[in-house]
Amino acid sequence: MISFEVIKTHSHSSARLGILTTPRGQIETPCFMPVGTQATVKSLTPDDLKSFGAQIILGNTYHLYLRPGHDLIRSLGGLHKFMNWPHPILTDSGGYQVFSLKKLAKITEEGVTFQSHFDGSSHFISPERSMEIQQALGADIIMAFDEPTPHTASLDQTEKSLQLTTRWAKRCKEVLHSDTQALFGIVQGGMYPDLRRKSAEQIMEIDFPGYAIGGLSVGEEKKLMYDITGHTAPLLPADKPRYLMGVGTPEDLLQCSSMGVDMFDCVMPTRNARNGSLFIKGGKINIRNEQYKTDPDPIEPDCSCYTCKNFSKAYLRHLIMVEEILAMRLLTLHNSTFYQQWMTSIRKAIADDVPFR
Amino acid sequence: MISFEVIKTHSHSSARLGILTTPRGQIETPCFMPVGTQATVKSLTPDDLKSFGAQIILGNTYHLYLRPGHDLIRSLGGLHKFMNWPHPILTDSGGYQVFSLKKLAKITEEGVTFQSHFDGSSHFISPERSMEIQQALGADIIMAFDEPTPHTASLDQTEKSLQLTTRWAKRCKEVLHSDTQALFGIVQGGMYPDLRRKSAEQIMEIDFPGYAIGGLSVGEEKKLMYDITGHTAPLLPADKPRYLMGVGTPEDLLQCSSMGVDMFDCVMPTRNARNGSLFIKGGKINIRNEQYKTDPDPIEPDCSCYTCKNFSKAYLRHLIMVEEILAMRLLTLHNSTFYQQWMTSIRKAIADDVPFR
Repeated sequence: MISFEVIKTHSHSSARLGILTTPRGQIETPCFMPVGTQATVKSLTPDDLKSFGAQIILGNTYHLYLRPGHDLIRSLGGLHKFMNWPHPILTDSGGYQVFSLKKLAKITEEGVTFQSHFDGSSHFISPERSMEIQQALGADIIMAFDEPTPHTASLDQTEKSLQLTTRWAKRCKEVLHSDTQALFGIVQGGMYPDLRRKSAEQIMEIDFPGYAIGGLSVGEEKKLMYDITGHTAPLLPADKPRYLMGVGTPEDLLQCSSMGVDMFDCVMPTRNARNGSLFIKGGKINIRNEQYKTDPDPIEPDCSCYTCKNFSKAYLRHLIMVEEILAMRLLTLHNSTFYQQWMTSIRKAIADDVPFR
Repeated sequence: MISFEVIKTHSHSSARLGILTTPRGQIETPCFMPVGTQATVKSLTPDDLKSFGAQIILGNTYHLYLRPGHDLIRSLGGLHKFMNWPHPILTDSGGYQVFSLKKLAKITEEGVTFQSHFDGSSHFISPERSMEIQQALGADIIMAFDEPTPHTASLDQTEKSLQLTTRWAKRCKEVLHSDTQALFGIVQGGMYPDLRRKSAEQIMEIDFPGYAIGGLSVGEEKKLMYDITGHTAPLLPADKPRYLMGVGTPEDLLQCSSMGVDMFDCVMPTRNARNGSLFIKGGKINIRNEQYKTDPDPIEPDCSCYTCKNFSKAYLRHLIMVEEILAMRLLTLHNSTFYQQWMTSIRKAIADDVPFR
């Protein structure tokens, strides 16, 4: 299973420095999990992931269930072995992707019927089925099957949705019997602080080894996301890891770490990289811009990534302009390294007990 | 400049074991040069190239002239520095690509006017211009600007073409003044042995530090390609490197090594990899095939490449079926490693003076 230890709390904020111990290794928190949707963090090998210090990655249950299929992955020894990543993995429940299909999905008390986004075939996922799939994948941390609530939902809709999420969370826990996989509950409640509190109480009542805050960073105003996170995080047990799903920008990671969040994931560093949008200290640049055409310097002179140590912005711009696939890898390496270094600096500020800035 | 030493000749064939010394390092011959068209061997980093023992790579003048432009590359310190490959590079003359545009190209005694394949802009390349561009790129070995003759050309057409190639080769040599770049002449003459002899004599008369056989592997029958290569290679000076352009399959490399060819290049290992076609001992497989869906074994159990050491065929098939770009790199690594190992085994057979099989 897992254990979580808070090593130090930050006197300048609600941030915590922690160690999350899993059967496949320890994770320093607050941590950022690169997203490996289809059994690969796009363009990167496991060696690449190790090169920038990733300690845990995320896999997407929905995608892996459809292709290549969880039975296939189980028969080949599980997701770790399949993708040759022997370190910790967290899988989501598939709920978020299934619900984001919207018109293609039909929700009942029992579960969700939906059509595959790539071949239109019909599928059904319930809390029990999500647990079965995630057990086959074999991640170290797995997520309860929930209904993410749109940020535009009314109070009534949001309450109904959180109650369904609670009933589904119970069903997830009831069918999961594992000594090696830790099941995290997910708090919903939309943009309503009272409903966030109600959801947190119900989910904590079920008792999980970790808790996620779901349904944020889905189109709402940034201030509202911070408000709801700042309201919800302290409701959760101090001795359990808190995971803010799908968040976010470097600034989001810093702000939400300061509210006591321990775990993050987001496609932003990898997806942005593939579009040429690169994180640097103090902002972003787009490497496609004309101004980098003749620029002999690396993206960031003091960055330790392979890309910055070996290539100029002019070369990287050339690669992406002529659509060379090497661009995808080199730019992803930089952004992923940036995110890991960013989390390292957050952890260091907590360890040194200095303000985040 | 370069020097070439034949270390050993094969008593079972006309093959030679050689060392080609360039300002940027030595190359064991017979050698295969991975193709780095746009200042990158597609999907691979310089570290990847070193991992499988590439000693020299090829760059395409036509592509680099158009994007990012030879002036830009020169201003950034040349192609080696631009792509961070400090080892030997050979550039072609641009002729092959320009002529393959066919309807978009207009040929005169002076040179070729053509339209860019990607934006339709008009350009002119002459022997002098090709030398200027290749000097800006700064490769260790550069090629004379020639007219590749279609394999369907008549005797008259072919003779006219080889005479033009000779006049252009003279113009190339006249304008090239370099202590560091070695200019290779190219023998044409199509599918006519007498014209191959005539071309070889004319090109040798100009005197180059190395000679290429051009205009083969362009659609003619395999046997004809072997016949023309076997006829032409021994016409060339024994103490100079012989380069068979654009060839070929592993079998071609072996057959043509046995005829005394020292250098090869081809997009086959890299392009095939991106289509899922993988070289193995005794043949090829396509990793997309259903039969590999659950295959837990590597492509080749005794292959030393990163891909075979770390991933199953089932995983590689999954990656390519879901169009993950990591597939491109992992499969390219395997095929490129296969080619380099193949050349190593050819060189070992010559060194040990045993038959190729």
